[in-house]
Amino acid sequence: MKIIIGNRNYSSWSLRGWLAAKQSLLPFETELRVMDSPDWISGEAKADMPSGKVPVLWDHGEAIWDSMAILMYLADKAGHDRFWPRDMHARGLAYAMCAEMHSGFAPLRSACPMDLQHHFPRFAPSDAVMADVRRIEALWEEALTRFGAETGEPWLFGRFGAADIMFAPVCTRIDSYHLPVGPTASAYVTRVLDHPFVAEWRAEALQEDYPFTRYDVPGAVNISQEKRP
Amino acid sequence: MKIIIGNRNYSSWSLRGWLAAKQSLLPFETELRVMDSPDWISGEAKADMPSGKVPVLWDHGEAIWDSMAILMYLADKAGHDRFWPRDMHARGLAYAMCAEMHSGFAPLRSACPMDLQHHFPRFAPSDAVMADVRRIEALWEEALTRFGAETGEPWLFGRFGAADIMFAPVCTRIDSYHLPVGPTASAYVTRVLDHPFVAEWRAEALQEDYPFTRYDVPGAVNISQEKRP
Repeated sequence: MKIIIGNRNYSSWSLRGWLAAKQSLLPFETELRVMDSPDWISGEAKADMPSGKVPVLWDHGEAIWDSMAILMYLADKAGHDRFWPRDMHARGLAYAMCAEMHSGFAPLRSACPMDLQHHFPRFAPSDAVMADVRRIEALWEEALTRFGAETGEPWLFGRFGAADIMFAPVCTRIDSYHLPVGPTASAYVTRVLDHPFVAEWRAEALQEDYPFTRYDVPGAVNISQEKRP
Repeated sequence: MKIIIGNRNYSSWSLRGWLAAKQSLLPFETELRVMDSPDWISGEAKADMPSGKVPVLWDHGEAIWDSMAILMYLADKAGHDRFWPRDMHARGLAYAMCAEMHSGFAPLRSACPMDLQHHFPRFAPSDAVMADVRRIEALWEEALTRFGAETGEPWLFGRFGAADIMFAPVCTRIDSYHLPVGPTASAYVTRVLDHPFVAEWRAEALQEDYPFTRYDVPGAVNISQEKRP
């Protein structure tokens, strides 16, 4: 298997697809396409991206694009238990949370693009952004309280899985943009950022040095690995 | 089970969720909430909609919101074969197509809101809308040619399933807005509109008489059941 991703620093959907590939425990290669490069803009870099977007998983000569589809495909291939809770009610909630993340939270996503190399201590979230954050906190709290806690494991539905993967880039945003959240969400964000897969991605993202001007959020402060381990 | 839907005439996501419930063959009730009514605007009508949006499936006191999640949940409950092709490659393509529909095609969706009571013979699609239509045609063609045709059944992946459900409101838009498509897509649109579940929904939508001013596409021509059987 091969997964095509965009810049690790910026591409939140690539992070989701790549985390799904890691979580499958199946062997795979990662191929990075530099977003906004001349090849990207000309479309040459997108020749093997059916929807023109990252991530794309290639397996047996077939493309599976879109991180939600990649999660579903890899659950079939690697075992549903690696991605979804077994209990039917928990699974229904996990599906709904992942689907809402997949098509929703536009204010948060557009105001706070993922950018792992910077933080934004003076970022002032709009009411719409904070409404998204409150909603996400409520969803996390429900999952953690009703289904996660009883397993003794610290993830949304107990074992690390699809819901944690779908919300991982939200965790990076809460951290980078200093978005105010309560103690439960704050502790969960820290756990996700420290998850070995997420930490691996973040470390590689900090090494990237590609010109990229699409996201221009005021007040960006560059972080070095020294300052933010 | 109970599914909460919005106006049948306008709510394309409700159509998807309701088709999924029908396709499950499980017994369920349908509860319509009138969009843009005073209760809707005040939020009272949304008290049992966790994301504030339709559709929502209620089962065993648990809410599963979002049509993609409803599809996934009902596939677990009623059998994956009722929703997804069995072949791994076909399934990967079906997942990707459904996920792309779930989060994409914004130009088509915003320029051509579902409206089953009207048609728009003078609608002039923008380049962005036509790019969406061409992409959807290509996806349909790939599914029909590679996977649908060999089964002898006329749906995207052979048996009627999740992909047909996700694209059903696109079929109504191609019809209502007179969007130009080739013969393969045109024949597929007709088959979907004539599918018993879709026909049942359309017939009920034509009976609806609720004030609704959110969509104001110029050139709307009212259709009666007489004129468009």
